[in-house]
Amino acid sequence: MKKLMNVPNDVVDEMIEGYAAAYPQYVRICAENKRSVVSSKPVRPGKVGIVIGGGSGHEPAFMGLIGPGFADGAPVGNVFASPPPDPVLQVTKAVNGGAGVLYMYGNYAGDCMNFDMAAELAGMEGIRVETVLVTDDVASASKEEAHRRRGIAGGFLVFKAAGAAADKGYALDDVVRVAQKANASIRTMGVALSPCYVPQTGKPSFMLGDDEMEIGLGIHGEPGVKRGKLGTADEVADSLLSTITADMPLAAGDRVAVIVNGLGSTSQMELFIVFRRVARLLADLGVEIHRSFVGEFVTSLEMGGCSVSVMKLDDELAEMVDHPADTPLYVQK
Amino acid sequence: MKKLMNVPNDVVDEMIEGYAAAYPQYVRICAENKRSVVSSKPVRPGKVGIVIGGGSGHEPAFMGLIGPGFADGAPVGNVFASPPPDPVLQVTKAVNGGAGVLYMYGNYAGDCMNFDMAAELAGMEGIRVETVLVTDDVASASKEEAHRRRGIAGGFLVFKAAGAAADKGYALDDVVRVAQKANASIRTMGVALSPCYVPQTGKPSFMLGDDEMEIGLGIHGEPGVKRGKLGTADEVADSLLSTITADMPLAAGDRVAVIVNGLGSTSQMELFIVFRRVARLLADLGVEIHRSFVGEFVTSLEMGGCSVSVMKLDDELAEMVDHPADTPLYVQK
Repeated sequence: MKKLMNVPNDVVDEMIEGYAAAYPQYVRICAENKRSVVSSKPVRPGKVGIVIGGGSGHEPAFMGLIGPGFADGAPVGNVFASPPPDPVLQVTKAVNGGAGVLYMYGNYAGDCMNFDMAAELAGMEGIRVETVLVTDDVASASKEEAHRRRGIAGGFLVFKAAGAAADKGYALDDVVRVAQKANASIRTMGVALSPCYVPQTGKPSFMLGDDEMEIGLGIHGEPGVKRGKLGTADEVADSLLSTITADMPLAAGDRVAVIVNGLGSTSQMELFIVFRRVARLLADLGVEIHRSFVGEFVTSLEMGGCSVSVMKLDDELAEMVDHPADTPLYVQK
Repeated sequence: MKKLMNVPNDVVDEMIEGYAAAYPQYVRICAENKRSVVSSKPVRPGKVGIVIGGGSGHEPAFMGLIGPGFADGAPVGNVFASPPPDPVLQVTKAVNGGAGVLYMYGNYAGDCMNFDMAAELAGMEGIRVETVLVTDDVASASKEEAHRRRGIAGGFLVFKAAGAAADKGYALDDVVRVAQKANASIRTMGVALSPCYVPQTGKPSFMLGDDEMEIGLGIHGEPGVKRGKLGTADEVADSLLSTITADMPLAAGDRVAVIVNGLGSTSQMELFIVFRRVARLLADLGVEIHRSFVGEFVTSLEMGGCSVSVMKLDDELAEMVDHPADTPLYVQK
């Protein structure tokens, strides 16, 4: 493992410190907890507070996405580990503008437990908290058990949709409705070509042959649900998209948003080559791409590979996807 | 080498095709040349045209930076190779709004030759072309021979400053002046931790031991000017910044813009850890960071490592750095 770091146990705190120092116009670290990152601008009274979070190692998710049109705050856990309840609670208190707070995070046991405890504590302080779990990963459970699926790169657009709704002044129930619809409308499928190294262990998260790929990967360095021969970019794109459309059929005239997400070390060149094929396949189906997102949105440290996400849009979701956002690591006009 | 690609010889054309398909609201491929990428919006009459370019493999530079406040077009070369004159000429004609065109690119022999030929051809068609070379890489030549230096990540802010000046309606001579001042005011120094693989050769660009780094790297997969033991993030940041300040002294009260640029496979976590130290060192010097850029701006495929750039700002450069930009791969409000 070769990394630009100092002491492995300090990587998260030092990252947050560097991040807050780089973007003081956007974010600040809460005085009460150094793992609680929130917008540096005061809460807009009456706006629903948007809290996203989870472990670190997924940058720009989650703390990179704090600002108008997106999230208001993010508790930060250790690498690939949920934050405990306290930083979640501190973020909740800091972003509460009196209209309630929405928690959104990937569906992982540790996150569920810690965010639920924080929600309970916030409730005791009179803050209404609702939760929407992201469950976009097609590979992680069958369609019948879709509620058990993990949350991966599709979370980016679920967070964005809800963040847009909150920015437009929707009440908490309506922001929850938009977030649930966004999550129900998106599917993601990914492949990994190379592992990542968690700083504290220094070990690769899995081993792969020179001609192999992991199919249906997660975003915590875990291997995929199966292993296969590495195909061409077109073959990989075909496989990812067909898995998605088998789960969420698309018909001519449908409108979608597409994410091709790099996991950390995959070049933008490769992501565009994959996107090219996805765009052609969707055009062949008569599906209109309303907006595209190609780059790194939810990473897994320096893992190699990518995922494809497709969100089926109605007019409301299209409006949310198009809504401007202004955060340190993602800006949209 | 493991890459998401089809045929190695097709990677550049397929990348451009995917890129243009992803961002049709921003860019189009010129009908005359499939390696000529320009803004999809019509030229604003009287605006100086901004052309940036060079080889591919540096994404988001150069074609990712086309849009209001930044460049108007980018000819695209093969991986790490200059585009020939024709795509440069086609871009020039497409972005000419009658006020002249500025070429900006890194100082490499191949780029100089090809862009100069294109400028001559454009001149024969009545288009006035000026050129500003980027020479920010401290490692590549001594201070006395600063004009021989290579252009690396600092080009991002040189392009941005000139793009802002053109967007504000400055005449060509004034845009040239701003670009020259921006280039004279920025220094970059980098380290590589791991090589990249050029698709056509499939070979690593250099070999490094597990505990080694290349110091003073370029952005074409070439090794650095010397090799050293990999230090901690703080040691690396100290070394990069002290090399910069030895060349361009900074004093208390100075105002700077800082880039910590990832070369392709280095995680954002590491970039923020490096930035943290750079910010501390500058604070110790009494230097004010006016704006920070942490992420991937000029890459070298999936090379590992980072560079630090510091631009000394006067009021005019600060205004250009703050000017909004709206491109597919870099947006600033």
